[in-house]
Amino acid sequence: MKAIKLGIIGSGNLGVHLCRAFSSSNDIDVTLFSRSGQNTGLINDLKNVVIEIDQGPLTNEYDVLILAVNDSSIQDVAAQNKENGALVLHASGSTDISAIGAVREKDYGVIYPLQTFHIENELTYADIPFLIEADSVRNLALITRLVELIGAKVHIMSSENRRIMHLSAVIVNNFSNHLYALSELFLTSKDLPFDLLLPLINETANGIGQRRPSEIQTGPAKRGDKQTIERHLYMLKENSDLKKIYHQMTLSIEALYRKR
Amino acid sequence: MKAIKLGIIGSGNLGVHLCRAFSSSNDIDVTLFSRSGQNTGLINDLKNVVIEIDQGPLTNEYDVLILAVNDSSIQDVAAQNKENGALVLHASGSTDISAIGAVREKDYGVIYPLQTFHIENELTYADIPFLIEADSVRNLALITRLVELIGAKVHIMSSENRRIMHLSAVIVNNFSNHLYALSELFLTSKDLPFDLLLPLINETANGIGQRRPSEIQTGPAKRGDKQTIERHLYMLKENSDLKKIYHQMTLSIEALYRKR
Repeated sequence: MKAIKLGIIGSGNLGVHLCRAFSSSNDIDVTLFSRSGQNTGLINDLKNVVIEIDQGPLTNEYDVLILAVNDSSIQDVAAQNKENGALVLHASGSTDISAIGAVREKDYGVIYPLQTFHIENELTYADIPFLIEADSVRNLALITRLVELIGAKVHIMSSENRRIMHLSAVIVNNFSNHLYALSELFLTSKDLPFDLLLPLINETANGIGQRRPSEIQTGPAKRGDKQTIERHLYMLKENSDLKKIYHQMTLSIEALYRKR
Repeated sequence: MKAIKLGIIGSGNLGVHLCRAFSSSNDIDVTLFSRSGQNTGLINDLKNVVIEIDQGPLTNEYDVLILAVNDSSIQDVAAQNKENGALVLHASGSTDISAIGAVREKDYGVIYPLQTFHIENELTYADIPFLIEADSVRNLALITRLVELIGAKVHIMSSENRRIMHLSAVIVNNFSNHLYALSELFLTSKDLPFDLLLPLINETANGIGQRRPSEIQTGPAKRGDKQTIERHLYMLKENSDLKKIYHQMTLSIEALYRKR
């Protein structure tokens, strides 16, 4: 079978990672389109990848185009490539499929990788669930083939359900990271080393692979240890933000497990 | 050198894990004292371990006793073994060394493993930081030897600083797990699979081993994406607890990065 010709528009975090992911298959030829050339130094040496410093309307030679641009630019870039014969996809968790559907008659869809991307971090792309959606069964099959070529799994999901998954991703990723950040800043202000918490943070994340998080909750709020909670709130008296979060999380844990 | 004779009092989560950890060294002979016999089936087949169904005042043959009991029982169990010649340690993050010091003239201290323990989970004990404290340099050296025999690292820390580390552990472990639990319950209520979030959760935790969490924050609150935030709050309208947490975390992220 001929290789799939894939164009990726945008060389931000997402574009660079999608480029790394799909170029790992010999059955996919990737062209990355970048307006600014940013980050292209990071993918210069990938095989199966051509870099074009250009983001205008693209030629008709691609099977699939992925718009790896800001949510607010998806519709504009899709409209620019209105006449393109490729299957045109966006890669956003919180953007409806109709953002592209509004400017194309057919051959459009979504390929949303449920993962967080930092430009330097190496990832195992085969572990990432791809939430996909398309305007036809034929196009769902093409997206599925693309994803399976890199060893990953697709999950067909409506825009509404994808948005719920995206909200959940914000909660477990952005908010957990913020808890880590607040702890880091708190410990640094006390001249204590944040690094000592890394094994604990990893075990907390790994632990839920084995059991449901709602079944393994521990800590003072879960066991109703008022004395420790009061002391912790006192210790946070000069740190009003973290104190409010401590209070809110404690109330929520107490409410959840009292109900049961 | 003769093996260290270690007595561990209590066969809860912590006692069982300490038993597994220290019995991995051939230079430590472990006796686990359990009042109820709970969980002892889990450690029956460990080498270098004797199990005693008893928790009364212990005989004088141990070099070190670790009180792996509830925080509120530490002082009572220490008082019961007031005359014992061993070095007597508690293993609590939030309990002052003086809880034992009040009932013993000398040879007391703390050995606090900064990790979360679930009874079934296997752990790499060599990765756990042990925060230690003692009434003398000689006793600090003995605790250090015990910990180094299982390949782990000690960090000498005052009761006050240990309490700050414990509070931080509650934030990164208990609160993150609660975010996972709330997402799990939210997704289940929408018939969507929580498991799809596991690779993201793991990457979020692993990512901070490479860069400081305050430097890798992402998401709608960080980038000031009001439209997505409003939509998320609307999606949580029937979930008042999670909505409050979403709101509080968003305010806190906005405040932190606006300041910078």
